Amino acid sequence: MTQSDPVDYQRIIENVYAKVTSLEGKGQVAHYIPELQHVDATQFGVHLNTLDGSDFGVGSNQTKFSIQSISKVLLLTLAYKERGDTLWKRVGVEPSGTPFNSLVQLEHDCGIPRNPMINAGAIVICDILMSDLSDPKGEMLAFIREIAQNSKIDFNPKVIQSEKSVGYRNTALINLMRAFGNIENDIDQVLNLYFSLCSVEMTCQELSRTFLFLANDGIDPITKQRILSLSKSKRVNAIMQTCGFYDEAGEFTFRVGLPGKSGVGGGIVAVHPEHFAIAVWSPRLNKKGNSYKGMKFLELFTTQTGLSVF
Amino acid sequence: MTQSDPVDYQRIIENVYAKVTSLEGKGQVAHYIPELQHVDATQFGVHLNTLDGSDFGVGSNQTKFSIQSISKVLLLTLAYKERGDTLWKRVGVEPSGTPFNSLVQLEHDCGIPRNPMINAGAIVICDILMSDLSDPKGEMLAFIREIAQNSKIDFNPKVIQSEKSVGYRNTALINLMRAFGNIENDIDQVLNLYFSLCSVEMTCQELSRTFLFLANDGIDPITKQRILSLSKSKRVNAIMQTCGFYDEAGEFTFRVGLPGKSGVGGGIVAVHPEHFAIAVWSPRLNKKGNSYKGMKFLELFTTQTGLSVF
Amino acid sequence: MTQSDPVDYQRIIENVYAKVTSLEGKGQVAHYIPELQHVDATQFGVHLNTLDGSDFGVGSNQTKFSIQSISKVLLLTLAYKERGDTLWKRVGVEPSGTPFNSLVQLEHDCGIPRNPMINAGAIVICDILMSDLSDPKGEMLAFIREIAQNSKIDFNPKVIQSEKSVGYRNTALINLMRAFGNIENDIDQVLNLYFSLCSVEMTCQELSRTFLFLANDGIDPITKQRILSLSKSKRVNAIMQTCGFYDEAGEFTFRVGLPGKSGVGGGIVAVHPEHFAIAVWSPRLNKKGNSYKGMKFLELFTTQTGLSVF
Amino acid sequence: MTQSDPVDYQRIIENVYAKVTSLEGKGQVAHYIPELQHVDATQFGVHLNTLDGSDFGVGSNQTKFSIQSISKVLLLTLAYKERGDTLWKRVGVEPSGTPFNSLVQLEHDCGIPRNPMINAGAIVICDILMSDLSDPKGEMLAFIREIAQNSKIDFNPKVIQSEKSVGYRNTALINLMRAFGNIENDIDQVLNLYFSLCSVEMTCQELSRTFLFLANDGIDPITKQRILSLSKSKRVNAIMQTCGFYDEAGEFTFRVGLPGKSGVGGGIVAVHPEHFAIAVWSPRLNKKGNSYKGMKFLELFTTQTGLSVF
Repeated sequence: MTQSDPVDYQRIIENVYAKVTSLEGKGQVAHYIPELQHVDATQFGVHLNTLDGSDFGVGSNQTKFSIQSISKVLLLTLAYKERGDTLWKRVGVEPSGTPFNSLVQLEHDCGIPRNPMINAGAIVICDILMSDLSDPKGEMLAFIREIAQNSKIDFNPKVIQSEKSVGYRNTALINLMRAFGNIENDIDQVLNLYFSLCSVEMTCQELSRTFLFLANDGIDPITKQRILSLSKSKRVNAIMQTCGFYDEAGEFTFRVGLPGKSGVGGGIVAVHPEHFAIAVWSPRLNKKGNSYKGMKFLELFTTQTGLSVF
Repeated sequence: MTQSDPVDYQRIIENVYAKVTSLEGKGQVAHYIPELQHVDATQFGVHLNTLDGSDFGVGSNQTKFSIQSISKVLLLTLAYKERGDTLWKRVGVEPSGTPFNSLVQLEHDCGIPRNPMINAGAIVICDILMSDLSDPKGEMLAFIREIAQNSKIDFNPKVIQSEKSVGYRNTALINLMRAFGNIENDIDQVLNLYFSLCSVEMTCQELSRTFLFLANDGIDPITKQRILSLSKSKRVNAIMQTCGFYDEAGEFTFRVGLPGKSGVGGGIVAVHPEHFAIAVWSPRLNKKGNSYKGMKFLELFTTQTGLSVF
Repeated sequence: MTQSDPVDYQRIIENVYAKVTSLEGKGQVAHYIPELQHVDATQFGVHLNTLDGSDFGVGSNQTKFSIQSISKVLLLTLAYKERGDTLWKRVGVEPSGTPFNSLVQLEHDCGIPRNPMINAGAIVICDILMSDLSDPKGEMLAFIREIAQNSKIDFNPKVIQSEKSVGYRNTALINLMRAFGNIENDIDQVLNLYFSLCSVEMTCQELSRTFLFLANDGIDPITKQRILSLSKSKRVNAIMQTCGFYDEAGEFTFRVGLPGKSGVGGGIVAVHPEHFAIAVWSPRLNKKGNSYKGMKFLELFTTQTGLSVF
Repeated sequence: MTQSDPVDYQRIIENVYAKVTSLEGKGQVAHYIPELQHVDATQFGVHLNTLDGSDFGVGSNQTKFSIQSISKVLLLTLAYKERGDTLWKRVGVEPSGTPFNSLVQLEHDCGIPRNPMINAGAIVICDILMSDLSDPKGEMLAFIREIAQNSKIDFNPKVIQSEKSVGYRNTALINLMRAFGNIENDIDQVLNLYFSLCSVEMTCQELSRTFLFLANDGIDPITKQRILSLSKSKRVNAIMQTCGFYDEAGEFTFRVGLPGKSGVGGGIVAVHPEHFAIAVWSPRLNKKGNSYKGMKFLELFTTQTGLSVF
């Protein structure tokens, strides 16, 4: 397609939504965070915002859900803005490969996580924000509300509590990194910030709106406010492209062809630079921990329209 | 930038070329293939072809060099065209992570290479072509000449011989895959095809021209001939984006932001979909085995112009 | 040698001691536990106890030192006595191979440590004792005092504190095992038991005396009291033989040929079944974390006398 | 037991043999070497030779079988005799840990195999013998016949052929080591020597007799001829103890408590220094590739008699 063609996004997303809805019952709701299991697993929402201020939605697009790992992109955005390229002494930008070696890689790489989109990397980002900000949790929430242009976005204390109660693997990761000297602050406080961010709740509509600046070279196209520099904005997208889906990053890039990020709450956000941001949500996950319907929707959506970066 | 602005590519590449030229002496010529060491290490060329048929060059852009691993993209193109998605039973689309686990991943994944851009994956692609074609080496060369629109492109028998004489690691890989049943043909013949393809020689100008179809959704923009379907073309680009630079794939995506592929001969090719293909060449390599000046050129080029997919 | 020859142990150990003393200054005192660095690094003691009640000593054989990982054998002894072979559902008996994969092995083996002589394995043993005993720390100390026939053996609270202050890697291990369900009790309490046992202090004379039952098929040869059954005693020795020296276990078996265990405090204890127990101590460690002089002493001692199990 | 008690070996082995015979049908004959599958899987033999020249047998103790990896001990014996401790620059003495990382360890350790009892290590030993001997295959056979005191021991050409036809993994190993410079001779010739040694056939009686020198500090107790020095003999036993059973070495040491070596033909040989050598054979293997009945027999035999080194 060429940019001069007006795209009938509403028709396209409704059409794809109908096809994907029929895939009922596949996948599993995330089982390891107790609080996330109470959700109605059949819900499915999609929302798309374009740079010119239009937006298009279908299904449960206005229901709040736990954005979980999607918040890693927002953590990175604030830390990158604050610290610039000094960040990359503490965390890499390479995909992590297979899941079975997450810990061995951390050992092999002397406590430097592969990228900021995996748990270890986002924990390091939290540690950096702890060192830089006087009220990291409050300032991080304020930052999200600002780029979302929505003062009601908030943490969910029950989810924070639930994550802490089963956070053994994250505690293992942060202690291993501390052993290598790559954590500077109090472990419990860093994990509290990390789990708080995981608990942020948004609707598809809010999530899509929040990521719009990454589709516009770092500038919010509605408020015209610059969130990140051109170069940093492109680089955050690049990291999402290669690292946003754990060990399914290659598969997502292959099938969908957009920079994006998923969370175990069943949400996925993706951006098409110069065009739009899109958020999908459905709680059942595939074996790799990414929303089953969300992945299918985005694959069909970009394959059918050719609306990918490649 | 918007597509309506005419970009003064010649001025930009000359400007960036001048900056990068000053980085003389950094990096090392690939030492493990004896024949490749005879090259003049100071050479440095750049060539860019746009979809409208214009092309722009600077430096040693008309000197032949060994394209090495860049041929993996051409092998994939023909095999994907022939086999379609049945290919993915034999090879994956995920980045390979750190180099130290190439063999353990092959063991862990029961002989299925992570992607077609690493040696093991390209060897499987060669095995597939051996099974499908009556004269795989001849047909593969004919295919390259066709998409290059250049009947003089050829193998270099001395380089083939040189690669064979030190090909122990590739022999280890193919035998391990054969032990898992993922190689069907005679091992020596498959390796001969693989090494032959590595030895293909092109100039920057020829290489850039050859990859133009991947910047145009699978259609050669000059001859209007379709080489690959839209969807397959986008997916080959996606695989280059996540897997094209071994364990520096994330770094290249982060710094350059274009789908691309490098070879140990010092060549790098990249495409900007809807815009252009570009080839750079300089024999000295950085620690990850990618052209030192080539990487720097592309980083400055896309950072300065904003001409990346993100 | 045959058992009927009387061996002049005093002369032999003095002779070997003199040779090894000349190796002054090699190796490094353990640096990662702050409290252990205050020790005089030149100290070197040896003590040997035979089954018939004789004992022989040289050098600093009556100076207290931190037995550290040597206590893992005593933890195993009590747990094996209490639990019998049900123990092996929670921990293995295989050597751990290279150090770099301690964590990946724990992941690969779903939280089951390779053996009770590595940190992860001893932590699981502590967890088992926590579940079985009403006062695990007190009862474990009482057990050690009983087999040592010495009521003055004790923990060193400063060392406990020092280990806790830097115990990030052990905290990582226990959390990872907890994530796999292989830790049942409160993490802080289990680690407190573990660090307490590491802090136990003995002299060479006391340590050698304590291990005498393992040289006599599980019976203290002086008091005639059975500590462990014949079969269990042999199996504890077998585990020391294959797993007692981390990734230098093969080297120790190769050079010394006795079942033994080392600690980062610089102590090593070994037993020759049917013959004797021997303890050596010198704080400087080789690169693998085992006492430099202790290893040399035992190698020369068994090579010169042929007094090994092989 | 003490050495002055005469042990009624014949009664003991018959008694244990009877118990183990009832375990019919468990385990699987090695499937990956085609020629080994033709054997009658129910066969089960035991033979024990003491230092004083007595010997005791039961079952199929006079039937020839393929000794396979047991020959690794004989390769090591000759190479160690010839080269002494310079050997250890090319191969280590540490257990290999889990099977899944055999190749990654070889990569991590830059082509130096962990020990001479795994395939990679024995292949390096073959390479060393190739460099040292004018007729390595002939001289190696002559050496075996000499220590066996039996001129009829021979290779089985059909088994050599069968191993070659499926030797992809070994070809992978040798090529990887060659890539690291740890193989000096022609790959095909080294592998031919290696496969030839795997094909050697012996009966239990012959095998037990052959290993008697390792139970007697390196001297054949019958001919009084020295095969290896005292120190080297003890060290070969030490290597068998920690490395003789792949990733079940700890288990064998734990259950049986003797230095020993197994082969996928279903044979196991073990020695009790100062006492005896024993060979057992039964073709069905457990999951770790060691004879099911052989392991059980030796476990019951040493547990019942206390005849272990610990």
